Amino acid sequence: MISEFDLIQRYFTRPAKSVVLGIGDDCALIRPPEGMGMAITTDMLCEGTHFFPDVDPRSLGHKTLAVNLSDIAAMGADPRWATLAVALPGVDEAWLAKFTDGFFALAARFGVELIGGDTTKGPLTLSLTMLGTYPIGHALRRDGACIGDDVWVSGETGGAALAVAHRRKRLTLTGPCLSYCANRLDWPEPRIALGRALRSIATSAIDVSDGLVADVGHLCERSKVDADINVDLLPASTAMKTSGVDAATIRHAMLAGGDDYELAFTAPVAARSDLHAVASRLGLPLTRIGAIVAGTGAVRVSDAAGAPILLTAGGFDHFR
Amino acid sequence: MISEFDLIQRYFTRPAKSVVLGIGDDCALIRPPEGMGMAITTDMLCEGTHFFPDVDPRSLGHKTLAVNLSDIAAMGADPRWATLAVALPGVDEAWLAKFTDGFFALAARFGVELIGGDTTKGPLTLSLTMLGTYPIGHALRRDGACIGDDVWVSGETGGAALAVAHRRKRLTLTGPCLSYCANRLDWPEPRIALGRALRSIATSAIDVSDGLVADVGHLCERSKVDADINVDLLPASTAMKTSGVDAATIRHAMLAGGDDYELAFTAPVAARSDLHAVASRLGLPLTRIGAIVAGTGAVRVSDAAGAPILLTAGGFDHFR
Repeated sequence: MISEFDLIQRYFTRPAKSVVLGIGDDCALIRPPEGMGMAITTDMLCEGTHFFPDVDPRSLGHKTLAVNLSDIAAMGADPRWATLAVALPGVDEAWLAKFTDGFFALAARFGVELIGGDTTKGPLTLSLTMLGTYPIGHALRRDGACIGDDVWVSGETGGAALAVAHRRKRLTLTGPCLSYCANRLDWPEPRIALGRALRSIATSAIDVSDGLVADVGHLCERSKVDADINVDLLPASTAMKTSGVDAATIRHAMLAGGDDYELAFTAPVAARSDLHAVASRLGLPLTRIGAIVAGTGAVRVSDAAGAPILLTAGGFDHFR
Repeated sequence: MISEFDLIQRYFTRPAKSVVLGIGDDCALIRPPEGMGMAITTDMLCEGTHFFPDVDPRSLGHKTLAVNLSDIAAMGADPRWATLAVALPGVDEAWLAKFTDGFFALAARFGVELIGGDTTKGPLTLSLTMLGTYPIGHALRRDGACIGDDVWVSGETGGAALAVAHRRKRLTLTGPCLSYCANRLDWPEPRIALGRALRSIATSAIDVSDGLVADVGHLCERSKVDADINVDLLPASTAMKTSGVDAATIRHAMLAGGDDYELAFTAPVAARSDLHAVASRLGLPLTRIGAIVAGTGAVRVSDAAGAPILLTAGGFDHFR
């Protein structure tokens, strides 16, 4: 049986060039550059709650990092360092090799260095803490939305929720829609470049992990404003629209489905052309879906004709 | 049923005065002071592996923080900020109130602010990431031990291991020894003040969590030296010595038992009087237990007569 120390050495240790001291001491030592603040976020993924027992370990490695990168993106920060705590029921080296392949492939793309963590015996659980740096005074917070701002969302929402429904056998996806939705759930793409571009444009931002309406709601609560969302403006994927899944189910997934990892953000009307330029430069659709109005944290959804859309659940809550 | 957001608000949110932005956004934002580097460590505690299902939630809250503070102490750093990821099988508000009582009582003593984290449904698991600051160039690392240095340990070791053996019904403790050992296991005291004092004195340091010999071994491996330990010099607690537990069991617990959270460190012979002064000032015994010699990472244990002591297991390993 491989020892805990060999396991860390073999699977979790990569050169960390930007640290004072990496894996192998009581702590890692880091030094943020002059003029930069640090953004920190922690997300935990548990088998049965966040992923299915038969999950592809490569995609789980990717996703463990991606969901935290998404929080870094939503602050407009640059990802730098991560620590990873892993509870494993036992040592399965083939599984670990695939998990760390998926993890380090994404880490390499974004220049993230794994600088510490913990491995222990327990029910399969991943807890990642991600550190990023941002130019002081230029983080993208949730609390800056202003009355009159546009509400925007990147990419498309709802695909991950449809994939979950399919795997729970609540509906059946086939063909291009199945592969599109599975890819959205298993291989989310953190919007780091968008977050960085929004630093000087957006007034507030949040990542869409609990569901679009719920997350815009969190942003409104922190900003002490309301949002009016027009459901007919939401960007719907071609794969979903041509899937044969009924329109009401798709609409609910787009509004309330979790696990999308897009960014929702607000920006002044005057920034529209700048945002079109950002979308074009990044090859990432940015869609204006509503407006910020006076209020205390509510989100109202209606269709183009002005008829209100009522949601059955506000967003994802692990204890509901 | 309380919502996830209310749960975080009610139990995990305290004012965080030293941060740019605390709980409630995608990331927390922090700014380390000028001239300071940052030390970061992550530890995960799982039910069944690190604690018994009937653990007192107050002591679990204390210990979740204490084990990470111990790593910060071993770097000679000052504890500052923490993020906490918690998986819970369900919401038990009485349990949460006690857990967070224990957690925040220790946090307050050391000026630690909880600035982020995650709560989710899953088998009871706690993952804490702790950030500390240290004066650049003055962290206590594992790799600085020099030939001729003394090897020291703070406090006493072995008590926590005896408490575990008692709870697993492998031996029976009674009276003062039972309460001493249970206290060592459930309410470890992180040696923050000692770590800070050692910054300018010790050549290397490590916290004793895997077992004294194993941890001195980690230090020797990183420093590329050997250590000779004299078992008759080890500080034995009066409660343990007078407990009726056989001497061989006590000796094994002192050498190989985990979960002690004392500091083992090396220092030049010339520092002995400084270290006695530190011990006196902190009211914490510091004991010289051996010496660093040329080698490649081995630890040899012998008694005062020079007879070698062989250990059956090198230290704690979650996967063995």
